[in-house]
Amino acid sequence: MARFFLTLQYDGTNSYGWQRQNNAHTTIQAAIEKAIADLVGAPVSVVGASRTDAGVHARRTAAHVDIETRLRGEELRRAIDVRLPSDVSLIALEEVAADFHCRHRALGKCYAYRVHNARHRSPLAERNAWFCPRELDVAAMRDAAKPLVGEHDFSAFATLLSDYPNKLTSQPDPERPDKPEGNVRTLHAIEILQRGHLLTFLVFGDGFLRGMVRGVVGTLIDAGLGKLTQTDVEKILVSRDRREAGANLPANGLTLEAVFYDRAEMERWLARASEAAKDERMSLPGSVSSPLELLG
Amino acid sequence: MARFFLTLQYDGTNSYGWQRQNNAHTTIQAAIEKAIADLVGAPVSVVGASRTDAGVHARRTAAHVDIETRLRGEELRRAIDVRLPSDVSLIALEEVAADFHCRHRALGKCYAYRVHNARHRSPLAERNAWFCPRELDVAAMRDAAKPLVGEHDFSAFATLLSDYPNKLTSQPDPERPDKPEGNVRTLHAIEILQRGHLLTFLVFGDGFLRGMVRGVVGTLIDAGLGKLTQTDVEKILVSRDRREAGANLPANGLTLEAVFYDRAEMERWLARASEAAKDERMSLPGSVSSPLELLG
Repeated sequence: MARFFLTLQYDGTNSYGWQRQNNAHTTIQAAIEKAIADLVGAPVSVVGASRTDAGVHARRTAAHVDIETRLRGEELRRAIDVRLPSDVSLIALEEVAADFHCRHRALGKCYAYRVHNARHRSPLAERNAWFCPRELDVAAMRDAAKPLVGEHDFSAFATLLSDYPNKLTSQPDPERPDKPEGNVRTLHAIEILQRGHLLTFLVFGDGFLRGMVRGVVGTLIDAGLGKLTQTDVEKILVSRDRREAGANLPANGLTLEAVFYDRAEMERWLARASEAAKDERMSLPGSVSSPLELLG
Repeated sequence: MARFFLTLQYDGTNSYGWQRQNNAHTTIQAAIEKAIADLVGAPVSVVGASRTDAGVHARRTAAHVDIETRLRGEELRRAIDVRLPSDVSLIALEEVAADFHCRHRALGKCYAYRVHNARHRSPLAERNAWFCPRELDVAAMRDAAKPLVGEHDFSAFATLLSDYPNKLTSQPDPERPDKPEGNVRTLHAIEILQRGHLLTFLVFGDGFLRGMVRGVVGTLIDAGLGKLTQTDVEKILVSRDRREAGANLPANGLTLEAVFYDRAEMERWLARASEAAKDERMSLPGSVSSPLELLG
């Protein structure tokens, strides 16, 4: 028996989220478990670093699995990958210590929420970006994001599994047994990148509550529409009441971009995101997002 | 009756190409004609600037149509757009002179052919990029592209409608009655942009033969694999024989990025593409293409 660390990518459009379900719905976890079980001839249990919701994508996420196999390295990666459906891919695989845990060892994550902000729809963007035809004030959204950065109780932005109670602060999070307080998380940065009609909200943090990124960006969109000020966002945060914050935006705009296990790598991403947000070279108002704009 | 100039975007994944067909297959032209006919209550004929093949995408293409309507401007654009299927969008609309012709007035086009070049598949890229798992020599491909730039007879790269004759040079092109020679075209530039695992071949020209971009890039891929040299590409061009060139690459990697009607705009794109191709900042070998890489 050996433990393997898996780096995965998936398009969530046609899946019912990460987590295996007791019905016929297609989920990412079930697809990976089936591929590996088909290969090794025994049922397996895959532990994921993040349980993304239905319709959410992942560019680089992680998982681990214990399996009995003589295959190693690239041979094993390919043997699993060819058994996966086309919307999931096994990017990399490496053997790790038997006590390595992909969720407990994760230092942080980067999510991207993409918004196609134009009067016209964009068939080439809509799989990975939410279409917002109303004008957004990017400076106002950047201001409104400031109170959210740092260590806070993010209950006001978490999707509850039931409607009541609205305040979960005292409940421990089963996903993070190492964390002392249920809904306290640290957001390292929220950077808003503007390229033509594409707005990308990059949200970095040590961990995220269910629905948190979509609730945070939904609240920033309200600020961009002039409905909320920076002071309002501060009040929402302090309220710890989900009913105060903006709407949860649709899943198609959300991509888990990376799970970090290396602090230096996370620092590099943070620095580059901050630099990219300042770079307005390619922001051409009124233009169709072109590959030249997107590729810098 | 008034003539309108239409700016369109489409995802070609599920369509049988631009051109209307005498059967039940979905085509882009038929979808647009149906949307407008539903609005104005009479059949219409839409003339396109480019007849892309099945599976090819367009980020900004053009068409014109003569219709009888009291609607104008944004009101007319929206009335047509809401009647279009989700994979086609009407980005802009403007009234033009009755003798304006979207194909005859076009000065040039920019196509992008995208290649996801990595060992692993990329579910997030595969709708718009061809997956090539073999190592490609980008410098060799740039060298091999040089003989193709300029005015040449591109018969060696054109997809023929029948297998014989292989040389069409003497035949006039019904698409370009203003052009003296059937298969002579001018390529202004071929720029290869490298961002993480994504290679983007930007091909600029005054006009293109059927299948030409896919044949040109297929030939450059052979050069990237070490199968062809710059001298071989020169010989293929001179041969005017389609059997000499590389394979036609799959349609999903091809996007018509823009049709130009303004010379200054085309010059700006050319300059920016050349600059972007030189910028290797974001070329991180071995990395997963991230939004930071893609967004510069």
